[in-house]
Amino acid sequence: MTDQNLIYTGKAKDLYRTDQPGILKMVYKNQATAGNGAKKEEIPGKGVLNQAINQLIFTYLAEAGIPTHLVEVLNAREELVKEAQMFPLEVVFRNYAAGSFVKRLGVEKGTPIEDGVLEFFYKADALNDPFINDDDIRFLQVATEAELQEIKALTRRINTLLVDLFKQAGLILVDFKLEFGRTAAGEIVLADEFSPDNARLWDVETKASFDKDIFRNDEGDIIPFYEAVLSRLEALTQA
Amino acid sequence: MTDQNLIYTGKAKDLYRTDQPGILKMVYKNQATAGNGAKKEEIPGKGVLNQAINQLIFTYLAEAGIPTHLVEVLNAREELVKEAQMFPLEVVFRNYAAGSFVKRLGVEKGTPIEDGVLEFFYKADALNDPFINDDDIRFLQVATEAELQEIKALTRRINTLLVDLFKQAGLILVDFKLEFGRTAAGEIVLADEFSPDNARLWDVETKASFDKDIFRNDEGDIIPFYEAVLSRLEALTQA
Repeated sequence: MTDQNLIYTGKAKDLYRTDQPGILKMVYKNQATAGNGAKKEEIPGKGVLNQAINQLIFTYLAEAGIPTHLVEVLNAREELVKEAQMFPLEVVFRNYAAGSFVKRLGVEKGTPIEDGVLEFFYKADALNDPFINDDDIRFLQVATEAELQEIKALTRRINTLLVDLFKQAGLILVDFKLEFGRTAAGEIVLADEFSPDNARLWDVETKASFDKDIFRNDEGDIIPFYEAVLSRLEALTQA
Repeated sequence: MTDQNLIYTGKAKDLYRTDQPGILKMVYKNQATAGNGAKKEEIPGKGVLNQAINQLIFTYLAEAGIPTHLVEVLNAREELVKEAQMFPLEVVFRNYAAGSFVKRLGVEKGTPIEDGVLEFFYKADALNDPFINDDDIRFLQVATEAELQEIKALTRRINTLLVDLFKQAGLILVDFKLEFGRTAAGEIVLADEFSPDNARLWDVETKASFDKDIFRNDEGDIIPFYEAVLSRLEALTQA
């Protein structure tokens, strides 16, 4: 495979065309970024951990009936995924107040959010990924009304499934970001990744972060915490 | 009436208690502000013009079946209004891209917005009135689901009525901000005011601003333009 096949390079992953139509290769990178790329660092081992965590999560969700783009894991850093037309949306779901939500609404970090809050951010680097509402999405024509409702319903189902999974692993799923795409066959699938890079996971007992906030806040090495997330999840699935 | 009766002082209006239960006196001020109060100026004549324009608009809307807080105009600067528990929301409706919408979504000023866009901002000075979505409103408990839907439906009906009115006056209703309250009797009413202070009005032919953007952008005296809005509307109602 040559670089000619590289069709997308993101902050934490690259995507390559393959010989199979409708199938891409996704490669997890070790790069960590924060503040929309303002802070950037290579963290050896992160790519492998994120892929392992993601594989476990996406497999668990697929078994529960959530359509995902994951086709086959090739090796510790590479996997085959269904090609999908991505919605330029970051779909954020919050069970507890943290991050930008705390600053925007002036609520205390850790405040429980009954029924959760779903937020859309428009993926547009030049605009700094602005917060948008449903009417904005219709105006921007980035999703139809039916697609919007399907993405919302999928996100809430995923949240219910993952809150339960992480609870068993002794972790609170505080919030997370998802991305969805539509395959050539017309199916809306969960794409991108689910990892501690784009979710907040707090220990049930100590409330300590097991996610990228450690990197964002310069609180040390993230690798032991990502490893802990993986081993706690593996212990569950092997039980 | 003494200052003891002053129960609220806002950027452009004051509210006083009266001898009648459930009835307040609203007084229009000459103060103009922009940038959430960063720019502030006394503009003689503005209060009288805004009240006259508001009276005309609120009367027109009431005749079309929109519940408003307006009870009786006392004089050129003062009116009696129903006391209402205000929703801490700025309800913005946009027919064309302008202002913060242009900056946030990177679209060209004047772009038509098919079906319009309705946005909620949380009235909280310390937070700089943040943009919020429906889920945020439920979390903040500033309105119930039913109230939220009623406010949205009222806003869209008001938009349809006002687009038509201003069109007859040779003006494009680009966008506007409304505020709603709930009376002791449980009715949701349009409160606050509708004036060129919180709406963008462009001349149909020249696209020139007839609103507070003239003040925001230091483009001269707003009074002749506010007078023009009033006289164009008066010409309609007298026809």
